[in-house]
Amino acid sequence: MQINAYDILEKVRAEKPLVHHLTNWVTIYDCANVVKVLGASPVMAHAPEEVAEMSGIASALVLNIGTLTTDLVESMKIAARSAKRKGIPVVLDVCGAGATKFRDDKSFELLNETRIDVIKGNASEVARIAGEDVRTKGVDGGAVGRDLAEVAVELAKGRVCTVVITGKDDIVTDGGATYIVTNGHNMMGGIVGTGCMAASVIGTFCAVESDLARAAASGLCCFGIAAELAAEDCPGPGAFKEKLFDCAYSLNREQIESMQRIVSARTEAP
Amino acid sequence: MQINAYDILEKVRAEKPLVHHLTNWVTIYDCANVVKVLGASPVMAHAPEEVAEMSGIASALVLNIGTLTTDLVESMKIAARSAKRKGIPVVLDVCGAGATKFRDDKSFELLNETRIDVIKGNASEVARIAGEDVRTKGVDGGAVGRDLAEVAVELAKGRVCTVVITGKDDIVTDGGATYIVTNGHNMMGGIVGTGCMAASVIGTFCAVESDLARAAASGLCCFGIAAELAAEDCPGPGAFKEKLFDCAYSLNREQIESMQRIVSARTEAP
Amino acid sequence: MQINAYDILEKVRAEKPLVHHLTNWVTIYDCANVVKVLGASPVMAHAPEEVAEMSGIASALVLNIGTLTTDLVESMKIAARSAKRKGIPVVLDVCGAGATKFRDDKSFELLNETRIDVIKGNASEVARIAGEDVRTKGVDGGAVGRDLAEVAVELAKGRVCTVVITGKDDIVTDGGATYIVTNGHNMMGGIVGTGCMAASVIGTFCAVESDLARAAASGLCCFGIAAELAAEDCPGPGAFKEKLFDCAYSLNREQIESMQRIVSARTEAP
Repeated sequence: MQINAYDILEKVRAEKPLVHHLTNWVTIYDCANVVKVLGASPVMAHAPEEVAEMSGIASALVLNIGTLTTDLVESMKIAARSAKRKGIPVVLDVCGAGATKFRDDKSFELLNETRIDVIKGNASEVARIAGEDVRTKGVDGGAVGRDLAEVAVELAKGRVCTVVITGKDDIVTDGGATYIVTNGHNMMGGIVGTGCMAASVIGTFCAVESDLARAAASGLCCFGIAAELAAEDCPGPGAFKEKLFDCAYSLNREQIESMQRIVSARTEAP
Repeated sequence: MQINAYDILEKVRAEKPLVHHLTNWVTIYDCANVVKVLGASPVMAHAPEEVAEMSGIASALVLNIGTLTTDLVESMKIAARSAKRKGIPVVLDVCGAGATKFRDDKSFELLNETRIDVIKGNASEVARIAGEDVRTKGVDGGAVGRDLAEVAVELAKGRVCTVVITGKDDIVTDGGATYIVTNGHNMMGGIVGTGCMAASVIGTFCAVESDLARAAASGLCCFGIAAELAAEDCPGPGAFKEKLFDCAYSLNREQIESMQRIVSARTEAP
Repeated sequence: MQINAYDILEKVRAEKPLVHHLTNWVTIYDCANVVKVLGASPVMAHAPEEVAEMSGIASALVLNIGTLTTDLVESMKIAARSAKRKGIPVVLDVCGAGATKFRDDKSFELLNETRIDVIKGNASEVARIAGEDVRTKGVDGGAVGRDLAEVAVELAKGRVCTVVITGKDDIVTDGGATYIVTNGHNMMGGIVGTGCMAASVIGTFCAVESDLARAAASGLCCFGIAAELAAEDCPGPGAFKEKLFDCAYSLNREQIESMQRIVSARTEAP
């Protein structure tokens, strides 16, 4: 089935879903703002006393362990359980997994104790979650020996969820359908925050489209196109980031339909 | 009495008041920076061990419950009591009130246990604080049935404070004088942070002008004019935000006096 | 020995050191992003369970007490001890020292209980740490009576570390060699965050150059040159900040060698 990323963006703009985040303190503004400029409504709330209620009025939940603490992860669990009761999708950005044992342990706690619908990370982060022996350098990716799509499909099947590996090419799979999104620009790696924003974009698209792999691929495609447009005549990373918001805000059907690069790669049955 | 918003801005620039904030982790930079570009001096500090001392050297205190926790609200109470001992104005942005019971409860705790001089929020947030039966969607406004100015005046009288409802038209009242500020631009709603920044602007203006309704109306007017100037030839929300800081920084008498739109609406005695 | 700031910047770009931060919640994004645009890799992590491991894979540690709490300072101590075991430099930005007793106490705790390699602050902050009777206005500097270079050298000798006092002219000394860096632009004082970013820049340069005074002077020189370039044809502080990242990103040998203003001031033996 052909993906039309613009159709899902239009649903975001029409439905303006509330996207609840428990995220890190570095890129929290960017996560909120990217949701906003796409036409949706971000809310950040992490107190254990209110996260269940906030997730209960939201249409998607985004968790990001970039600056995790034990308390924050406990709030994430409460929020994720509430999200599950309401039936909304939960995205987990395993930011920095592979860098410390604490991040690995807490990632696995979240995956084992709650229902995560989309696992998202860069190559070394996701590989670590998939059980590979890799080392993440802080929150920047490290090298992974195996074929990444294979790692993603295996993890998606094992965890019965959608897996997203971001990078030069983004890999999205639910274990059945697999999409490779080649939109994007290498300037995205020149600033802090695009990885975290990608998770927020995925959450926003998953809020309005129940096929989560299609939603995630569409979101990454739109975000990548915005980045390509932002990089035109761009003097540097400061200007790029500002233009990224401008371009995401004004994305139109013509741009997306002419620039969309999503390849569907049917994966083998096991 | 006629308001001249520029006169109060000039006092801000001359006196450079220190504005102490306990605010949320999403827009904390923007809150600090808007105070800075207006010519004042922001400081953010939330440890219970130091908030009293910090408020004690400040000229205004701004509280914002956008990403509240129980501990943070306890620090807010300590800061507010210190502010009261020193006699400086305390602004409370009831960010997200009406979205969760926790936010409502903590807002009322702050209002009942400390002396708040200015209550600020969007329509549904303030309506909730005024006891109306409304529902806030995260931190974005919901619909309110009643006449907003009436709600604001009633709340101002009941709490003996100044009440600010931000929106397309901003309403400012101390229960006696009521001002409607129609400066601003709809691009302000297209990015995250303008609401929180408005509270910081109000705090900054209240730091140098003891008539808090006049101060708040003047601050919102200046901020709205900066937004109108920023929106000229503006390609999108990223550029708008950058220009908002530039325009707030360079606001001059001619701009403000020619663009100021503050209507004084004397309200009826009850 | 002549300093060539560009040579150290080239080492940063080639080695891409991981710079671990425990910093404040106001400028945390800017601290991370300035490290990124210089070509290095920032990571922010503050949970006591992981800071030792994160510092253990990093090449420098930057501590900033801008929005300190008791818990955060305890994490800083754990990180600093780990950094010392690994032998990487630790930079402490004594942000707001002199404003409250709590900041003074925690600064001294960090200095007395861990090994700090570079103490960095503005005039009144460093003067307070040096035992002078000064008062900091929030996080903005206050007046200091004594000759600043003298204060810095004395502190460097007393604490056996490098001391950096930022301001119109930056002073860097390890007690032996003293450098005055006069690069920079007064627009840096017009926005929030340049002071914190300066500490991150210093940490980044110290990650690749073991002569910490040379590293710090070189970092401040490069950052100051980026600011001078950013201030050209600059409409205001919003644009300045964006351009600061662009200019830091694209700094080249020609710019730095033609614009570098570092004066070596050999200080007297005591």
